[in-house]
Amino acid sequence: MTEWWQDAVAQADRLALEQAQQRQTQLTKPQGALGRLEQLAIRLAGWQGNARPQLERVWISVFAGDHGVAVEGVSTVPQAVTGQMLRNFANGGAAINVMARQLGATLDLRDLGLAVPLDPLPGVHHLNLAPGSANLLREPAMTGALCRQALLAGRQAVLDAAGQGAQLFIAGEMGIGNTTPACAMASLLLDQPVALLVGPGTGLDAEGLRHKTAVIEQAVGLHGPQCHTALDVLERLGGLEIAAIAGAYLAAAQQGIPMLVDGYICSTAALCATRLNPACRDWMLFGHRSAEPGHAAVLAALQAEPLLDLGMRLGEGTGAAASVSLLRVACALHSDMATFAEAAVAAEPAA
Amino acid sequence: MTEWWQDAVAQADRLALEQAQQRQTQLTKPQGALGRLEQLAIRLAGWQGNARPQLERVWISVFAGDHGVAVEGVSTVPQAVTGQMLRNFANGGAAINVMARQLGATLDLRDLGLAVPLDPLPGVHHLNLAPGSANLLREPAMTGALCRQALLAGRQAVLDAAGQGAQLFIAGEMGIGNTTPACAMASLLLDQPVALLVGPGTGLDAEGLRHKTAVIEQAVGLHGPQCHTALDVLERLGGLEIAAIAGAYLAAAQQGIPMLVDGYICSTAALCATRLNPACRDWMLFGHRSAEPGHAAVLAALQAEPLLDLGMRLGEGTGAAASVSLLRVACALHSDMATFAEAAVAAEPAA
Repeated sequence: MTEWWQDAVAQADRLALEQAQQRQTQLTKPQGALGRLEQLAIRLAGWQGNARPQLERVWISVFAGDHGVAVEGVSTVPQAVTGQMLRNFANGGAAINVMARQLGATLDLRDLGLAVPLDPLPGVHHLNLAPGSANLLREPAMTGALCRQALLAGRQAVLDAAGQGAQLFIAGEMGIGNTTPACAMASLLLDQPVALLVGPGTGLDAEGLRHKTAVIEQAVGLHGPQCHTALDVLERLGGLEIAAIAGAYLAAAQQGIPMLVDGYICSTAALCATRLNPACRDWMLFGHRSAEPGHAAVLAALQAEPLLDLGMRLGEGTGAAASVSLLRVACALHSDMATFAEAAVAAEPAA
Repeated sequence: MTEWWQDAVAQADRLALEQAQQRQTQLTKPQGALGRLEQLAIRLAGWQGNARPQLERVWISVFAGDHGVAVEGVSTVPQAVTGQMLRNFANGGAAINVMARQLGATLDLRDLGLAVPLDPLPGVHHLNLAPGSANLLREPAMTGALCRQALLAGRQAVLDAAGQGAQLFIAGEMGIGNTTPACAMASLLLDQPVALLVGPGTGLDAEGLRHKTAVIEQAVGLHGPQCHTALDVLERLGGLEIAAIAGAYLAAAQQGIPMLVDGYICSTAALCATRLNPACRDWMLFGHRSAEPGHAAVLAALQAEPLLDLGMRLGEGTGAAASVSLLRVACALHSDMATFAEAAVAAEPAA
């Protein structure tokens, strides 16, 4: 059976790519002197089919979900904070709200399912697929059917973004305890020991970290033998918002919307997405290297080099949002700088 | 004799610093989860004397000067390009123009002295202190009097910025061949071998790099024994725009304007400034880690960790300009996020 996420991804525009590469050689600067900003502009040109790309319409979807494993004490923060923060998002007070406003970005909020459902919040899509995921220390986090619903929920967010002409897709997440499923998934997807990938999340101390490590190791031991595919890993060790983000990344590549991947949770979802359809990697940029230790391993597997490394570890999409301005300056430089001919500057090395 | 640059620098506002630190603990995020963005906001609060800092008025001064040592073939680019690029700046076509426009920053252009003076360009301060510096391979790059004039020219740019209420000062430079004096200065200021600090600049090949290394080693050997102070190093091995930038950094700290230091050339000027008045370091942030190899050593001596590392090596102030958006997002997050109390989010770890 063919799954929707196996459908072909969109193709970058080769002509626009070549035109943009050519233009870069003509701008009044030494070749390569703008470093990664040059390559960003060229890639955006290919993605947009426009040799002079611009980046006005940025779309940020924040996916929230609770995690049954939270009852095992893997986080310092009470599970109710997932819903409290979703209310904070709806009220405009969280970090991602501030950043979205500054960027002029659309902020889209999707509630996949909280342990205790909220009364409806203005502007939030309450999907309520389940009262959070199940406790992955005891049973699969999701059934196959639930996981597919969550993947489709991510796809729907991207279709909505595409309908609004989004030029860049950012996923963010909110889910107390979600570094635990991310670490478990990374351990199986990368075939690396939990101890090398686990981290303090929101702020565990050494004893808390030992306990979290033991929980994840036990969960990996329980489910690992049943995990034959990346989809199995996502179902058994993931979570609602993680599956939604994986689905969103797959759909964004199919819709031809470049995506800027946030930190540890989102990168793990991205890794899972590339296992479900490797070609989706072609549409990914990475915003920020998280302080969470497992992120480095996930990024290495994705051959990804984030644009920023500022010690952030908040989630919500904030690491990606912080790097949008770099894409915009790359576009502006590429499109608006004078060429050697226009400026009458000598382009060639001295004889 | 007391020199002007030895006068005391401004002091950060301790009350605003403390208030900003306190506010950071109340925002709806885990402590420290915004990484360096938190510290940037707190430092800006102290500098501005405002617990909720903002960053609207950014001032960029680009200092241009020619270098007598260019006749030794230390650059692939003809010396006339310094003036051609100054014309490009005046016409709005260079990278720093595009970035200044995007930031809404003031772009101030100061011509310290070109080998062949230009006809006056609109909006450029043509100071014409000398027809470029002298060839430091044969004689001191500047006389003591000329070096002081250049230092004062930098100070004047900062006084002009202060008069306009600038909240951030960025210096940029344009001077064909100027990685050669920067490398020579760094070698003496850091007491490190030229071979560890030298780099390809705008694009020397291996043979060109060997020649440049030999030129710098010879110059360091010629002038080193006469260099007893950082001022001696600046006079004998610096250049007009480098001295102006050092003077600007010293004056900015005295005026209480935080500065965002650009790449290799500007960081070397910053290093020299800190040797002339160590307290000026308190007002410095660093924008971008240059691809030029000597930059790492200069940054290490300054205990500086730039905000960005994007492989840029253009100068003009572009590395600093690229990082301004990070300061702005730091201010916005700090000032506009909800507190735990405002948002009714649980701040304390679970019992």
